[in-house]
Amino acid sequence: MALYVMKFGGSSVGDTERMKRVARRVVEKQDEGHQVVVVVSAMGDTTDDLIDQARLLNEEPPLREMDMLMTNGEQISIALLSIAIHALGKNAVSFTGWQAGFRTEPVHGKARIIDIQPERVQQALDAGNIVVVAGFQGMTEDGEITTFGRGGSDTTAVALAAAISADFCEIYTDVDGIYSTDPRIVKNARKLSEISYDEMLELANLGAAVLHPRAVEYAKHNQVCLVVRSSFNHNEGTVVKEEVNMEQGVVVSGIAYDKNVARISILGVSHVPGVLAKVFGSLANAKIDVDIIVQSGVQDGKADFSFTVGLSDREKALSVINNIRGEVPFEDITSEDGLVKVSIVGAGMVSHPGVAAQMFDVISKQEVNIKMVSTSEIKCSCVIEGSKLNEVVKALHTAYGLDTKDQVFVGGPEDRR
Amino acid sequence: MALYVMKFGGSSVGDTERMKRVARRVVEKQDEGHQVVVVVSAMGDTTDDLIDQARLLNEEPPLREMDMLMTNGEQISIALLSIAIHALGKNAVSFTGWQAGFRTEPVHGKARIIDIQPERVQQALDAGNIVVVAGFQGMTEDGEITTFGRGGSDTTAVALAAAISADFCEIYTDVDGIYSTDPRIVKNARKLSEISYDEMLELANLGAAVLHPRAVEYAKHNQVCLVVRSSFNHNEGTVVKEEVNMEQGVVVSGIAYDKNVARISILGVSHVPGVLAKVFGSLANAKIDVDIIVQSGVQDGKADFSFTVGLSDREKALSVINNIRGEVPFEDITSEDGLVKVSIVGAGMVSHPGVAAQMFDVISKQEVNIKMVSTSEIKCSCVIEGSKLNEVVKALHTAYGLDTKDQVFVGGPEDRR
Repeated sequence: MALYVMKFGGSSVGDTERMKRVARRVVEKQDEGHQVVVVVSAMGDTTDDLIDQARLLNEEPPLREMDMLMTNGEQISIALLSIAIHALGKNAVSFTGWQAGFRTEPVHGKARIIDIQPERVQQALDAGNIVVVAGFQGMTEDGEITTFGRGGSDTTAVALAAAISADFCEIYTDVDGIYSTDPRIVKNARKLSEISYDEMLELANLGAAVLHPRAVEYAKHNQVCLVVRSSFNHNEGTVVKEEVNMEQGVVVSGIAYDKNVARISILGVSHVPGVLAKVFGSLANAKIDVDIIVQSGVQDGKADFSFTVGLSDREKALSVINNIRGEVPFEDITSEDGLVKVSIVGAGMVSHPGVAAQMFDVISKQEVNIKMVSTSEIKCSCVIEGSKLNEVVKALHTAYGLDTKDQVFVGGPEDRR
Repeated sequence: MALYVMKFGGSSVGDTERMKRVARRVVEKQDEGHQVVVVVSAMGDTTDDLIDQARLLNEEPPLREMDMLMTNGEQISIALLSIAIHALGKNAVSFTGWQAGFRTEPVHGKARIIDIQPERVQQALDAGNIVVVAGFQGMTEDGEITTFGRGGSDTTAVALAAAISADFCEIYTDVDGIYSTDPRIVKNARKLSEISYDEMLELANLGAAVLHPRAVEYAKHNQVCLVVRSSFNHNEGTVVKEEVNMEQGVVVSGIAYDKNVARISILGVSHVPGVLAKVFGSLANAKIDVDIIVQSGVQDGKADFSFTVGLSDREKALSVINNIRGEVPFEDITSEDGLVKVSIVGAGMVSHPGVAAQMFDVISKQEVNIKMVSTSEIKCSCVIEGSKLNEVVKALHTAYGLDTKDQVFVGGPEDRR
């Protein structure tokens, strides 16, 4: 007998028939002799519908009240799933985030979990129930309802798995695992049987659509064994864990890409101490996430530098920079979209020099210009012209021997709730 | 400055425009210098929609999970109303039943309130907020979410008004007060400016659609000053309180009727001790509410008796009685529908003998047969042929001088959520 946490996203419980299928899947697991906790998201478009209703009343609804509003999406899901499980003759008990013991910091819209007191979950399990827990939500010490923000339900599942020492945390989704790259681009993309937390983190951060990076970090920190698999079939998924049995010669596990990239370049900046801190401090204050930062050499006491932000932050970033022109004098500012960031990821890269050089070589052979580069111990990213995405990903997939091996990846962020 | 509890039902917050209207109404009250707590029901058909979804999954959904499901209706309303109030530049804080301190007995679907700990409501009021509380819901000592059943939001409003010592508890609805009878039947029906709790209780129990009897009882017990008024205009409503300034000569305040009546007659029952207890005990065990009970005189050791139940309980009641035929022998059992119960209500009746006799006289003058009679200190009810309803109500309304005085009533139960 093992203890499983099974997490199903919004599309897996999108309508009554899908809800019934999830109920059967969960009951199947219990029938195999296991204890089961299920974490569910809001059904299909429920959250978006609630947000739309709020915006009809108020263009800037207060965050506290939005949390009060949005948590209903998950609470409706857990009740309905529990009702569907009862229809199969099994006992199920649903718990909201606060009932399941999720305590968070006093922040609305993106609260972090500070503690989980899973006694009620444990007691309900011990009494033979399938326990159904609302994802994405918790409560502050003062009894205020909070939500976790994007990737919240994945985080709920992983955190709860850690708190109750579950043997496995299965993330059910609409793909059946982690692929070596996007199968929509590379026909030969292969499903990986295993991947390390760090590789998954790089892939998740780079725009992979299956697991939210926050959940992967939580899993890594608590050594929770994650399994990514399909809610539509019984194929074995991809196991995400600390130690991966690396095949001989496998250096790059997967190829990821991210289309949500805008580049901003500031030209002729006076090179005095504190300039970078001023620029990026201002962007951080405006809550703009900056990804890659590249600075050119200094000439005549002036430097050019470029950085990338998400497409939706492009205009805001330009205006933030223009607003500090008095304190940080520069000659010109330009921006560019229509770009894509392509990355190779692999835990083996750290011990294999020349992997990045090989990437630049492959890209240049496609006669594609590399606009920016960023590297870490287990990944190398290049920003290129968006129109060249497919040919570059295909070439890299072949060059690193992924067409024939059992390896990583996943689509763009547009699939992700 | 006074402290108001304002309660709005589902139809008052049925869509975005109505929600905005309620927000304006509430802000208006605060602008007049008062403190305001608002209690709201689920929007329009939300609760029914949730129930429908549950039934698609399970024909007999467990009550605990139905409570988990249905409470979302009110929680969505409070968040949206609070968001709409913020749009008007005022601070509002929404609270679920458990956050507002409603503690209930551990029963699902129709829990009774055992205690209210309104500290959070009081603190939020003291901080200058409009406080928006979810009707119909509470929490048990063990942290289980419960609902109050029919009339639950009225009860929430009255109970909270008592707990925070509110000066007024205003029930906003789709009629602008309590009328001397149903205006759809009697054109001259008049709105009452005042009515006593006891009269309102009789009217509520007799099928009045405006206030749930449970809420009126709670108000009477806690001496909460209730005001029934329209959410669609600013007309003064009807005040329900203990002491009413009775006009000279006003004996009957209003005429009520109830179409939800089926009569069951058991004929030739052996008249031995315990027979009535057995019959009505069995009906009570089957959760069938019996209203009027009439027993004829005993002849040859045998008696006939009749009682009324709601139309939907008719078949069930017949089968319960047939099942105990072994223990309670009788000759025959018959049932009848197409009936209506007409009642006159008035606190003045207790000191005016002959009021009931006058009622029988008025009805007989319409050549209508009285099938059953039931009386209390402040009301007298007659069951008659349903087809005679309108003429009897009109005749009574005129006979008791209500056509020209400022007096009571309200429609059938079909308007009531």
